[in-house]
Amino acid sequence: MSQAAESDRMQKLVSLCKRRGFVFQGSEIYGGLRSTYDYGPMGAELKRNLMAEWWRFMVHSREDIVGIDASILMSPEVWRSSGHLAGFSDPLVDCKLCGERFRADKAPKKAAGEAATITFADKGRAKDLQALAQTLAGGPLTRVEKALTGAIAGDRGYVCPNCGSPFMSEERQFNLMFRTSLGPVDPIADVIAAVRSASSEGANEGEIRARVEAAMKDSSIYLRPETAQAMFVQFLNVQQSMSMKVPFGIAQMGKSFRNEVTVEHFIFRSCEFEQMECEYFVPPGEGPKYLEYWKEARVRWWQSIGLRAENLRLRAHEADELAHYSDGCWDVEYLFPWGWDELEGIASRTDFDLKAHSAGSGKRLTYFDPEAIDPATGKKGWHYLPHVVEPAAGATRGVLAVLCDAYDEEPADAEGKGERVVLRLHPRLAPIKAAILPLVKKDGMPEVAREIAGRFLARGINAKYDEQHSIGKRYARHDEVGTPFCLTVDTQTLSDQTVTIRYRDDRRQERIRIDEAVDVIAAALR
Amino acid sequence: MSQAAESDRMQKLVSLCKRRGFVFQGSEIYGGLRSTYDYGPMGAELKRNLMAEWWRFMVHSREDIVGIDASILMSPEVWRSSGHLAGFSDPLVDCKLCGERFRADKAPKKAAGEAATITFADKGRAKDLQALAQTLAGGPLTRVEKALTGAIAGDRGYVCPNCGSPFMSEERQFNLMFRTSLGPVDPIADVIAAVRSASSEGANEGEIRARVEAAMKDSSIYLRPETAQAMFVQFLNVQQSMSMKVPFGIAQMGKSFRNEVTVEHFIFRSCEFEQMECEYFVPPGEGPKYLEYWKEARVRWWQSIGLRAENLRLRAHEADELAHYSDGCWDVEYLFPWGWDELEGIASRTDFDLKAHSAGSGKRLTYFDPEAIDPATGKKGWHYLPHVVEPAAGATRGVLAVLCDAYDEEPADAEGKGERVVLRLHPRLAPIKAAILPLVKKDGMPEVAREIAGRFLARGINAKYDEQHSIGKRYARHDEVGTPFCLTVDTQTLSDQTVTIRYRDDRRQERIRIDEAVDVIAAALR
Repeated sequence: MSQAAESDRMQKLVSLCKRRGFVFQGSEIYGGLRSTYDYGPMGAELKRNLMAEWWRFMVHSREDIVGIDASILMSPEVWRSSGHLAGFSDPLVDCKLCGERFRADKAPKKAAGEAATITFADKGRAKDLQALAQTLAGGPLTRVEKALTGAIAGDRGYVCPNCGSPFMSEERQFNLMFRTSLGPVDPIADVIAAVRSASSEGANEGEIRARVEAAMKDSSIYLRPETAQAMFVQFLNVQQSMSMKVPFGIAQMGKSFRNEVTVEHFIFRSCEFEQMECEYFVPPGEGPKYLEYWKEARVRWWQSIGLRAENLRLRAHEADELAHYSDGCWDVEYLFPWGWDELEGIASRTDFDLKAHSAGSGKRLTYFDPEAIDPATGKKGWHYLPHVVEPAAGATRGVLAVLCDAYDEEPADAEGKGERVVLRLHPRLAPIKAAILPLVKKDGMPEVAREIAGRFLARGINAKYDEQHSIGKRYARHDEVGTPFCLTVDTQTLSDQTVTIRYRDDRRQERIRIDEAVDVIAAALR
Repeated sequence: MSQAAESDRMQKLVSLCKRRGFVFQGSEIYGGLRSTYDYGPMGAELKRNLMAEWWRFMVHSREDIVGIDASILMSPEVWRSSGHLAGFSDPLVDCKLCGERFRADKAPKKAAGEAATITFADKGRAKDLQALAQTLAGGPLTRVEKALTGAIAGDRGYVCPNCGSPFMSEERQFNLMFRTSLGPVDPIADVIAAVRSASSEGANEGEIRARVEAAMKDSSIYLRPETAQAMFVQFLNVQQSMSMKVPFGIAQMGKSFRNEVTVEHFIFRSCEFEQMECEYFVPPGEGPKYLEYWKEARVRWWQSIGLRAENLRLRAHEADELAHYSDGCWDVEYLFPWGWDELEGIASRTDFDLKAHSAGSGKRLTYFDPEAIDPATGKKGWHYLPHVVEPAAGATRGVLAVLCDAYDEEPADAEGKGERVVLRLHPRLAPIKAAILPLVKKDGMPEVAREIAGRFLARGINAKYDEQHSIGKRYARHDEVGTPFCLTVDTQTLSDQTVTIRYRDDRRQERIRIDEAVDVIAAALR
């Protein structure tokens, strides 16, 4: 797809999402809040359905995996042990010329001494900033149209990703975790007191900051940046209360928060998002075997909820992407309108996590297998730290992938009917499974239609009675929200107890008996 | 119930919750984090089932209510308009004698000039603190055993709730909302800079604090303290995308966060909790009518999921509890082991919320009814701000109420069998609907049992195969997690295709055919 076509497709999808109640901008009436999104009535149902499918597949349909639902607020010690407090920060830099703030590790590389051409959006801006650039360069630069030449890259090894300038601030560490305070405390008062006392003692910038961090330490907590750590922290409680035997897994779905520097692609990368993660504990040495198992199982699952095989692929992590403790990691990637991007990571993590939390907490997190031979003694009965394979999927990204895959535009058909937009959602994911439509709002049709809707609800199937606008408009609306079946009650219904069933995907219509309607649709949902 | 019996019952429930995988202390291996709880495998299922029932009742089974799922992070302007930023703070005070931190508005009242007797836990402590108390009193106090007399209450009008002392710090405002920062910023650096520059200009404490608050303003955001505001902020998007006609409702379930000074009663009052809220929009003047409707509907719902009628009551808010804009508010209360306490609030809020957000955002949030007569003009077609009735239930509290109601201890029965603990959960709420148990782990019984479990899963019913420990222990375990049905596969099964069904509530056992098992249990779930 060309870049223009991609962006056109995303734009149409975003517009459909707002128009039909899938996704709204968060706090929209207040001008929106950076990268927050609210799921409208249709989006809330779609996301619930997707996550329920994951839970059914990962938890309910298996004997060896159980679910948990842990707190978003966890002890800061959790993040110290996991490495998130130290390692979960990015080096941030500001361009002194154009003001862009960017991640140093993602900026375009340029070796010291190389020519760094600075380019602006237009000639006017280049003129405006020439003087400042020359001051920063310490010498004259040549302007040709919207570009300035003559600057030389310094020993940072990179330039501004926006304008190409080599003039930037020092790198600052920026933690991706959201920090807040727990308990009836007033951290601002503590911070003010710390700064004042440190300043009065003549402390320098670094010392003041250290004192402030120390003053905040007791009350600082963080919003979890992933759901995974709870499965390690509660490993023993879960294993013991449920008498689980290795290999077994613990699964969790829920919100996580990362103060991302770059938010992009609609709901794909945002600061508040949802995950569906499983930690699958295995005997030492068996990680690679189960990595193979989960790679296959997870791709199959994404296909089973409707994503097309040709839009899914597995990609092995390169050596430089792989964490030092990992003995293998693959991404399940989806072909989004902007290209292949991550939907789920499946990592073999050895015993890194349990070992880190055991060391951090001083608690023994081993598992005892009375039947296994302990390699150290050669005798039956082995205490060991399980290894883990982690299939970690993005629920928010899953919703976007499903929407992208389902979105379709159809030209006018043979009957000469107008073009349409249709969301070809898997029936299990569709927000509404069946729309029950009285042809007109009279002659007893609404009563019959409502009675039919009631039959669906009694079976736990989300059907919606809908009487607004013409029948054609209602079909079009339900095509756009992905309702797989419309059942229309008309005059014939009143005499022979049949309704018209209209199939979303091919617009085919046929008559079926009212008393078989629920079964027809229940069968499509299996 | 006596206080000792109450606390005994809560202790047993908390212990069951940990032992059977319902609720664990959050971050337990790190010594726990204040008032955070993690739901284990059984608790996660129970909570999911409770919330799914609410959604089914409030959203799926109705034409007039739709659901949303909004971001936890919202624009700070939302909280400015709603009044949470200004009003959602408590006056906190420290006792200078015993160190207790408490809410001034909840402290025991004592008029200025009255005698304030100070009482400690024991004589030793009274001795230790006598000198400090006398310094604070500015004169001698008499010690009798563990009490000090002679102190006089000051003009604050209250004394320390812990020791009764009238010696305390100034009141400090403490905001119940969790504050954090959004975006690639470093608020600490901004705060340090603000304190230093203000200090160097000789600013006083209050001025410094104001400068700090101003420096943090741009990046400060808050975790939502309730889910309700999203329904007002997205009112127009939802109404328009779904073509909703007043009266209609918007429902949402999800996490909210309040930095509570007092956390208590296990999961009842904690800083991170879940809500199930609905805003039901009605024409002006019709609030009181719908308040009556929702009072009745909501109590009926709590009963429908199994809470006993005698443990539920409705309580009208007193005049001094009622918000100034409200024209009526009722609490649904449950008889917890510690007494009647709030499970849900049902409030008629007039047009306070939409009016506040309309004023705060500058957006018109009115609804147009083309059929209604505008009272101002006497003509058809009326633009108005809907009034709202809010049934706002606690999901976390709901889980606790359900557990309290279901918990039962039975003495040995007529067969001389031992006493048992049983959770009499409504089958729809039970984490596991049916346990499928092979009598022994051989002779093909596991295979048959697994095949039966598969039949349940195909029907979307969470059944669990379970082969660990003796059959008696398995029955006891499933009684404790509230599994309503156990199906046992034995030698007879292999010859006649029947299983034993054991009913949790009365331990009755009978044989049924395998091929009717799913239907028997599906019927109990309706």
